[in-house]
Amino acid sequence: MKNKNYYAILMAGGVGSRFWPISTESFPKQFHDMLGTGDTLIQKTFHRLAKLIPKENIFILTNERYNNLVLEQLPEVTKRQVVLEPAMRNTAPCILYAALKIQKENEDAVMIVAPSDHWIEDEQAFTTDVQHAFDFCSEHDALMTLGIKPTFPNTGFGYIEYDQSSEEQIKPVHQFREKPDYETAKSFISQGNFLWNAGIFVWSAKSVVEAFRNNQAELFELFATGINDYNTEREEEFIKVNYAKSQNISVDYAIMESSKNVYVLPATFDWNDLGTWGSLYDKLDKDHNNNAVVNAKTLTEDANGNMIRSKTGKVVVVDGLQDYIIVDKDEVLLIFPKAKEQDIKIVLQKVKDEFGEHYG
Amino acid sequence: MKNKNYYAILMAGGVGSRFWPISTESFPKQFHDMLGTGDTLIQKTFHRLAKLIPKENIFILTNERYNNLVLEQLPEVTKRQVVLEPAMRNTAPCILYAALKIQKENEDAVMIVAPSDHWIEDEQAFTTDVQHAFDFCSEHDALMTLGIKPTFPNTGFGYIEYDQSSEEQIKPVHQFREKPDYETAKSFISQGNFLWNAGIFVWSAKSVVEAFRNNQAELFELFATGINDYNTEREEEFIKVNYAKSQNISVDYAIMESSKNVYVLPATFDWNDLGTWGSLYDKLDKDHNNNAVVNAKTLTEDANGNMIRSKTGKVVVVDGLQDYIIVDKDEVLLIFPKAKEQDIKIVLQKVKDEFGEHYG
Repeated sequence: MKNKNYYAILMAGGVGSRFWPISTESFPKQFHDMLGTGDTLIQKTFHRLAKLIPKENIFILTNERYNNLVLEQLPEVTKRQVVLEPAMRNTAPCILYAALKIQKENEDAVMIVAPSDHWIEDEQAFTTDVQHAFDFCSEHDALMTLGIKPTFPNTGFGYIEYDQSSEEQIKPVHQFREKPDYETAKSFISQGNFLWNAGIFVWSAKSVVEAFRNNQAELFELFATGINDYNTEREEEFIKVNYAKSQNISVDYAIMESSKNVYVLPATFDWNDLGTWGSLYDKLDKDHNNNAVVNAKTLTEDANGNMIRSKTGKVVVVDGLQDYIIVDKDEVLLIFPKAKEQDIKIVLQKVKDEFGEHYG
Repeated sequence: MKNKNYYAILMAGGVGSRFWPISTESFPKQFHDMLGTGDTLIQKTFHRLAKLIPKENIFILTNERYNNLVLEQLPEVTKRQVVLEPAMRNTAPCILYAALKIQKENEDAVMIVAPSDHWIEDEQAFTTDVQHAFDFCSEHDALMTLGIKPTFPNTGFGYIEYDQSSEEQIKPVHQFREKPDYETAKSFISQGNFLWNAGIFVWSAKSVVEAFRNNQAELFELFATGINDYNTEREEEFIKVNYAKSQNISVDYAIMESSKNVYVLPATFDWNDLGTWGSLYDKLDKDHNNNAVVNAKTLTEDANGNMIRSKTGKVVVVDGLQDYIIVDKDEVLLIFPKAKEQDIKIVLQKVKDEFGEHYG
């Protein structure tokens, strides 16, 4: 039997625009089978969490426009579990709101907050780590995060600096560090007590609500006034009226950076944020020419290091291309150097400007 | 009023495999709108001929499997005008067969035989040249061809050498020359009395039938035995039984190379055989980066000299490619250097071998 006090908040409101043209505003990354495994990323994430957490205790936080996608892709989820943000206000407001709902339902709840669009291969190690964090947060007033051991000086992630002197597996956090420049990232790596911030948090409902009360009085007040309405038919109306009034603020900034009771467990599982086509390429198996292929039937000549994706069964012939992103979907074909993948957002904006918003 | 004695035989049985993946065995080049003008090549060719020739006198020679495509794309054509080859036997047998049918219908017929998949921009010049050839063949026992003034030493075409001493516009042909090597092609060009053989012939029914009788006795006998059946309901049965017995032989080899009464009119119109993606590229208008685009909405950066084709309205983003063929259709995407375009036939064979015949 899974522990009834275990809860999850799955963050599924993002757009993933660097995965354009597959990821679009109307059909973002987390709802795609990015790796060609047969499951979408949100399905993978949901079932990974469901190994430890009762399915009915997994809440999906998303935008109203993705409500149907969530219900289609996760048929075991009921409407009650889908928490809709009527406005885009970053992570703090929706996490506080969901935490208050969960606390009202079960005041002994401990919960994990996790992105729905990352990749974790070793599900057993993940489950063990989360169990470990749940145990800790059940016994301590702690705000926890699972940190990823850095494999290279990535300048695209935030870092978590923990107390180097700690002998425990779960370490007190010294401070959160914003995305560093390359030299700083290199020094983080060499110091050894820095982890990547993957946006995975664990805490009890009590601890996180308390953290918001202490650190974000205004935000806390706003959502606390709705407490009698949550989990009732009046909730929708309350949220509709009040949600948009909340500040636009991340949960890291709102409570993690200013709290004293912050801990990190260095993750024992592999992790890939699937943030760009290049990171997806790194994750995928390669053919004999080091091309990563999803769905396509490829015929390549003098073509190496390419990330190739099409609809299932499409024949893709590529001759003479190195390290390209080749992504084909119904209305868009992208042929773009991997080295310039950060510019895909710019390309997307140009396409929207020139040919219409619906392409994004 | 168009002259009732004017006839045309449109050759529409080819496959055009160097235009794969757009051109396929089940839907060849001549039935595609290769230039994005709104008309398919066979429609363009038909309407060009119809400026001079009564529509009901334009016969379409094609393979049985393309019967429906012809009738769909040329709704003004009746079944009577579609002459089906039950077997692939090169050009001589089907031209003789069609000529006998036409002669039986109208013994004063003069006709043009023309490919259905070439491009001629200046339709007025074409009409004038054909009129000129019709006039000549109405008065003389002549086998005529319209020769194209060569613009460079192309080694992919056959050449027609005419009598340099002739002062007439219509020149006696000295000999036909097979596809030459580069040095030979260069010497042809410098001699000045060589023209490209575009496979466009003009003759009277009487002259061409006579030429077959004199030069190809066996082939003539085979089709002459059906004369009582042609243009009757017994024709189909006769052809079904006998067509496959005919030799596999080109009209050039069968009658043109061995006859004495062969003439050529140097064409005054432009001409492009649309034989490869590169020749299509040459023919098309270019954008400011010298890319030729058919149907696609393109966003290009550092991309020049590319031939880009997709379905209508598809967004194609290309970064960093020079002189490529980028052709996208529903089941196939081809990204291939223009310089290797002659290898597309090889690629096509590999795709068929690996993924199935239906891709070709």
